[in-house]
Amino acid sequence: MAELHLLSPKGFKAAGVYAGIKRRQTPDVGLLIADRSASAAAVFTTNKVVAAPVVVGQRHIAAGKLRGVVLNSGNANACTGRQGEKDAIAMCRQTAELAGCDATELLPSSTGIIGHLLPMEKVRSGIAAAWKGIGDSKQHAHDFAAAILTTDTRRKSAAATVKIGRQIVTLAGVCKGSGMIGPRMSAAGSASAKGAKGLKGLHATMLAYLTTDAKISPAALQRLLNESNEASFNAVTVDDHTSTNDTALILASGASGASVSSAGDLRKFKAALMEVCQSLAYQIAADGEGATKVVVVNVRGAADETTAKTIARAIANSPLVKCAMHGNDPNWGRIVSAAGMCGVAFDPGRCILKLQGTTVFKSGQPVSFNAAAVSKQLAKKEVAIDLSCGKGAGQATLWTCDLSKEYVTINADYHT
Amino acid sequence: MAELHLLSPKGFKAAGVYAGIKRRQTPDVGLLIADRSASAAAVFTTNKVVAAPVVVGQRHIAAGKLRGVVLNSGNANACTGRQGEKDAIAMCRQTAELAGCDATELLPSSTGIIGHLLPMEKVRSGIAAAWKGIGDSKQHAHDFAAAILTTDTRRKSAAATVKIGRQIVTLAGVCKGSGMIGPRMSAAGSASAKGAKGLKGLHATMLAYLTTDAKISPAALQRLLNESNEASFNAVTVDDHTSTNDTALILASGASGASVSSAGDLRKFKAALMEVCQSLAYQIAADGEGATKVVVVNVRGAADETTAKTIARAIANSPLVKCAMHGNDPNWGRIVSAAGMCGVAFDPGRCILKLQGTTVFKSGQPVSFNAAAVSKQLAKKEVAIDLSCGKGAGQATLWTCDLSKEYVTINADYHT
Repeated sequence: MAELHLLSPKGFKAAGVYAGIKRRQTPDVGLLIADRSASAAAVFTTNKVVAAPVVVGQRHIAAGKLRGVVLNSGNANACTGRQGEKDAIAMCRQTAELAGCDATELLPSSTGIIGHLLPMEKVRSGIAAAWKGIGDSKQHAHDFAAAILTTDTRRKSAAATVKIGRQIVTLAGVCKGSGMIGPRMSAAGSASAKGAKGLKGLHATMLAYLTTDAKISPAALQRLLNESNEASFNAVTVDDHTSTNDTALILASGASGASVSSAGDLRKFKAALMEVCQSLAYQIAADGEGATKVVVVNVRGAADETTAKTIARAIANSPLVKCAMHGNDPNWGRIVSAAGMCGVAFDPGRCILKLQGTTVFKSGQPVSFNAAAVSKQLAKKEVAIDLSCGKGAGQATLWTCDLSKEYVTINADYHT
Repeated sequence: MAELHLLSPKGFKAAGVYAGIKRRQTPDVGLLIADRSASAAAVFTTNKVVAAPVVVGQRHIAAGKLRGVVLNSGNANACTGRQGEKDAIAMCRQTAELAGCDATELLPSSTGIIGHLLPMEKVRSGIAAAWKGIGDSKQHAHDFAAAILTTDTRRKSAAATVKIGRQIVTLAGVCKGSGMIGPRMSAAGSASAKGAKGLKGLHATMLAYLTTDAKISPAALQRLLNESNEASFNAVTVDDHTSTNDTALILASGASGASVSSAGDLRKFKAALMEVCQSLAYQIAADGEGATKVVVVNVRGAADETTAKTIARAIANSPLVKCAMHGNDPNWGRIVSAAGMCGVAFDPGRCILKLQGTTVFKSGQPVSFNAAAVSKQLAKKEVAIDLSCGKGAGQATLWTCDLSKEYVTINADYHT
């Protein structure tokens, strides 16, 4: 099987071009367009400060149908007031004219610096150039994936297939995210997001765009995305800073002809969607600003799932824990104290803490272990922190990364 | 007037000696002893993981009277189970025998690495040596202040006087705190802390010991400490990591003969106590691990005080904001987005954000400003972030510091 990419699902075209918005000369304007109106579902940032493209995008996706996405990187179009909204709408209008659809059938996205008006001359010529070069090859998929990147060091993509009846349905996705990553996305802004209230997740600017050629209703697609989002994008944190622009979108072209509607098919489709979303989320943690390793925080046996998530998040976001992981230091006291400080029920006398599989703390007592051996294990590209709380059935997994000097370099020098 | 210090208030002696617990050869065992039984009040960490000396100290202070403090640095005696409690009690017993009081009249404290049993041989010889050299000179005060330090780069102390009737009452204090600073202390563990429920504050290992020669009841002392703590120690954060050992204690010897009991005198005394606590808290922020500057986060006009604190804390703890401050970067989008991400009411359309007095964002729109000039202002030793929310009367001030590469160096290399 050839390597799958964002345009492997039938019925989509894409492009990514350099329009001069970013300093680094890599693509910064992108288009992803479905041949026909597609089922659409999305989750958006829950930050009270919402970027203009998110405001516009939430309106446009309300009907559950879209033709595509128009986006730029290098400028977030956030905190830009009315002019910002006008600019986001102008991006949709220009694309709509080219694609032969209504402006409200397009979702705009932006990522980059906050508080600056979009350089619309550059954006406009970028959109025109992107449309001219649009296509469905692997290179087109790569160019689009590149056009969403900011401080990311590499493109991020994932794909999966699932058999529905006798047909193969393909799912694929690309994403970006490296800093300002602590997504807490929900479908609150989406009209098709019934029952999604109270969904809370991650933050960052992270953007994710998924495609599938399944035939599926917008409502079903939204439900499956909500569930997948919670255990993927909303479970990754780099700096716990929820962005103004976080967006994850899925478009279903229906071009495979395979209809996903029975409970069994929906279950299979969801498993594939979860696989793609989790792969993308993991890639964000791995490419976190300054990261040298992924830290997987597993909390088990908490009173309930919310408690487990709260504990996992406190551990994953502690700068002290992240620095210890960077230094390959089995300094488990920082982990246990992080679990105890987050305001939820936690009894150190009942917990078991493992670092890379080695028990380091149990029943309120230090456990004798080979610190040098564990330190060596912590030098790997993936590190597991496993905390059993001995209380209930609540569990949660979070992905984060270590905190290095490079994070400071990137964020102290990225000047406005 | 001669420079005031911890032993300027009459009725106290202190000592600090090096007992070989810390690698750095500076004092690591300290004693602070009142000549007679003193009124005592304290606030302790609200972390669910509570160090042994805090467990013991909370018991010992329950009656509101103490003779003094025995402490060590270099080892936190936290997550050390029953043996840890026995060791904390043994420290009190040894000191009690020397001072001629009951072991329950002493409060033990420890700070340093979590999860290691105290080296009791060293601690015991340290206590013996400290008792031998105890005295009430400025040097004794300095040695005690040094004995509580860990990664701190300098001693921290403050003092004030207040006229009660015709007499002068002196207050003084020392503290430590540099990393694992995000105190959230309350009087929950103290029997004299009536009405202190729901007090929530800061975290770190921060330790603070205050002395006064006022004559004041334990209940009044506890109430004034609770209130002062909330706007001082509980308002400082370095890494938002609440320690297992945070403790702030005040002892009142009564040796000045001045009785503080009328409403007016209590008000005057509280103002002086607040001044001392805020000076100490500020010094913690200024000496935060790797800090090059203090960042003062002022939130005004929030719906209520709790909302203001939540917003201030989100800004003060954002690694992105802290890195921007380190880089003298007026990247205000990070500040506004931090305010929006913390789950409380916040309307960017009604807020005004100032950096070092310069308005950078107002009514949802970027404001044109001289970025180079503001950047120059941000290079100062103290930086002010002022956010008006335009909503209500809630206000809060938090002190934090910038995030530098040095923080990573300190915390990735501080091996267990």
